[in-house]
Amino acid sequence: MYRPIIKTLWWEDGRLYIIDQRYLPEREKIVELKNIRDVWSSIRNLSIRGAPAIGCVAAYGIALSALKTNIQDREKFIQVITRDINYIKTSRPTAYNLFFALSRMEKVLKERKNITVEELKQRLVKEAEDIYREDIKCCYMIGINGATLIKDGMNILTHCNAGGLATSGYGTALSVFFIAKKQGKRIHIFVDETRPVLQGARLTTWELKKAGIPYTLICDNMAGYLMKQGGIDMVITGADRIARNGDTANKIGTYSLAVLAKYHGIDLYIAAPHSTFDLSIRDGREIPVEERDGDEVRRIKGHLISPVDAPVYNPAFDITPVNLIKGFITENGIINKPVISGK
Amino acid sequence: MYRPIIKTLWWEDGRLYIIDQRYLPEREKIVELKNIRDVWSSIRNLSIRGAPAIGCVAAYGIALSALKTNIQDREKFIQVITRDINYIKTSRPTAYNLFFALSRMEKVLKERKNITVEELKQRLVKEAEDIYREDIKCCYMIGINGATLIKDGMNILTHCNAGGLATSGYGTALSVFFIAKKQGKRIHIFVDETRPVLQGARLTTWELKKAGIPYTLICDNMAGYLMKQGGIDMVITGADRIARNGDTANKIGTYSLAVLAKYHGIDLYIAAPHSTFDLSIRDGREIPVEERDGDEVRRIKGHLISPVDAPVYNPAFDITPVNLIKGFITENGIINKPVISGK
Repeated sequence: MYRPIIKTLWWEDGRLYIIDQRYLPEREKIVELKNIRDVWSSIRNLSIRGAPAIGCVAAYGIALSALKTNIQDREKFIQVITRDINYIKTSRPTAYNLFFALSRMEKVLKERKNITVEELKQRLVKEAEDIYREDIKCCYMIGINGATLIKDGMNILTHCNAGGLATSGYGTALSVFFIAKKQGKRIHIFVDETRPVLQGARLTTWELKKAGIPYTLICDNMAGYLMKQGGIDMVITGADRIARNGDTANKIGTYSLAVLAKYHGIDLYIAAPHSTFDLSIRDGREIPVEERDGDEVRRIKGHLISPVDAPVYNPAFDITPVNLIKGFITENGIINKPVISGK
Repeated sequence: MYRPIIKTLWWEDGRLYIIDQRYLPEREKIVELKNIRDVWSSIRNLSIRGAPAIGCVAAYGIALSALKTNIQDREKFIQVITRDINYIKTSRPTAYNLFFALSRMEKVLKERKNITVEELKQRLVKEAEDIYREDIKCCYMIGINGATLIKDGMNILTHCNAGGLATSGYGTALSVFFIAKKQGKRIHIFVDETRPVLQGARLTTWELKKAGIPYTLICDNMAGYLMKQGGIDMVITGADRIARNGDTANKIGTYSLAVLAKYHGIDLYIAAPHSTFDLSIRDGREIPVEERDGDEVRRIKGHLISPVDAPVYNPAFDITPVNLIKGFITENGIINKPVISGK
C-alpha cells in the first residue's frame, strides 16, 4: 500500500543507494554512498535534497557507519557514532527533518545501555528503516488528506520539488497531486522552474510526466502575472522547517509566492510530515537560513550567465510568516494555523 | 553633453552597426546589419532589445533600406519603403517605441510630396538620426530627473536591462543610477537576473560594472525576501509600452515586483521617454503581450534544463496596473499618475 512510487534512496543488504538528482532529468544515475563522508557530500552538493529525503539518507548514513566500524568497545562505539551524527548535522542547516532523524538515531544510542555493540548496530539500522517507512506512510497520508482540498479542473501552482525525489518516494505537495489524479480528478500543475538550482524545471516536471499529470513549466517571475489572469486556483508547496507558530522555511521564492497568492486571494497550503515541525522554536526568526555559493546563481549547469566575478546574494530558503499560509497538509489531517499557539 | 556612454547601435557612412547582445557579457561582438531582413532578425532574435533601442534600430533600418534601393520612381519608392516599414512592425508586438519610430518614418514618406526620391532618402536618414539623438537626450534627462529621487546610501532594485544597451546608449532606469553616481551619491543596485533571457544577469551587471556602481545579482524569486528584510529602498524599471492611464507593459516579472513592492511599502518608479507612451490606448488591457518560444525557458544558453518536451508558458512581458506604480520618470520630469485621465 505504501510502496514508494519513485526510488529516491534505498537500503539493500546493508548498502545505501541514491539517485544522484544533479543529473536529472537527462540521466537517472544511481550512486552508492559508501561511507559517512559520501553521505555528507551527497546532502551538501544536492545529489539528494528535499527535507524528508535528507532526514532518511542521514539516518541510513548513520546505520551505514555503524555497520562499517569494527569497534567492539561499547563506549568507544557510541563516541564514534555520535561524532558521525554531529558531522552529518553540519551538512545543511535549514531542513529540520535532518535534525529530527539524527536525534532519533542519537536516542537509540543513549537509551540502550544494556545491549551489545552488535545489537546496537541492528537497532540503529532498524531505526533508520523505521524513519524511512514512516516517511513513506506520512507522505501517502499527506496525499490522501490534501486531495480532499482538490476540486476537479483545478490549476495548482507548486514551487521547487516537493515530490517523491524530496522524500522517501511519495512526496508531500506532489503526493496530493498523485492521489488526486488516482481519484480521477483532472488537475493541471504550474511548475515554477525554481532558480537557482532549477528543482522545478528538472525534477518536478520529470515526476509529473512520469505520473501522467499535465503541467506547464514557468519561470518563477511569471507566477504573479498568471495569478492576475486567474490562471491559478491554489498554491501548494513543501517545507524545510516549520516553527511552532506556523512560520515556514521553504525554498527561496516561496515567500514571494505567498505574498502574491495573498494579494490575489489564492490559498497557499504547506504540505509536510510531522518531522518538518520544529516545536522547539517559537517563530520563523529562529530558523537558520542557509546561504549557498554564488556560483549557483552565476552558472547554470556549469555555464556562466553573468560576469564571472558578479557579487551574488544566494539564500537557499526564505521564511513565510504564518499569516500568509491558509493551512498545513499533514499526515494527521489539515491543520489550520497556528500549529500550537503561545508557549 | 549627450554622448552615449555605451555604443549600443550606430550609423556610420550609411552603414548600421549593433552590438549583438546575445553574446554579452563574454563577448562584445559587433555586427553590421546589411539589409531590412537583418534588422528584422536582430530585433526578433534579441540581438538588439529594449524598447528605445528597438525604435532606433528600426528607424535606421528604414533609412538603410531607402539608401540601398535603386528605384527612381517616387511612387514605387514610397510603396517599397512602406512595405519595409510594415515588415519591421511585425518583428515584435509589445515595445511601443518601435511603432512610434516607424510612424515618424512613415510621416516623412507621406508629407514630402514635392521632393525627389534622393531628397526623400536624405530626409529618412535625417529622421532616423533625429530619433536616435532625441533618444540619447531623453535618456540623459531621465537620469537628471530621476536622480532627484535618489538619496545617498539607497539600495535600489531593478529588473531586466533598462540601460544603455536598451536605448541609444544612456539608458532609462540605469541612466538614473549613472547620474546619481556622477552626483556623488553612494548607491547599491540589486539586479534581478530576469529569466528567461537573463538580461539582468548578462547586461545590467555588465553596465553597472563598467560604470563602477556596486551591485548584487539575485534570482528573480529572491526580491520579495530581500524586501521583507528591509534590503530594498526603491524599485526602478524601464517600460515597453505605457497606456494612457499609466498601466505599463514591461519585462515579465515586473508585475510580481510591483505587487511585492506595494505589500512592503516600497515605491516603484517606471523610467521611460515619451516614445514609450501609447496615448492611443486607454489602459493595459489593450497592450498586446508577446509570447515567445518555449525553448527560451527550456534551455539556457542552448543547454536543456527541463524535459525536452516540457510544456511551457513564456510571456515576454506583463502588465503592471497604474495603482501599483508610484510615478513615471520621464525627460520632462516626474509624472505622478495617472498620465492623462479619462478620454
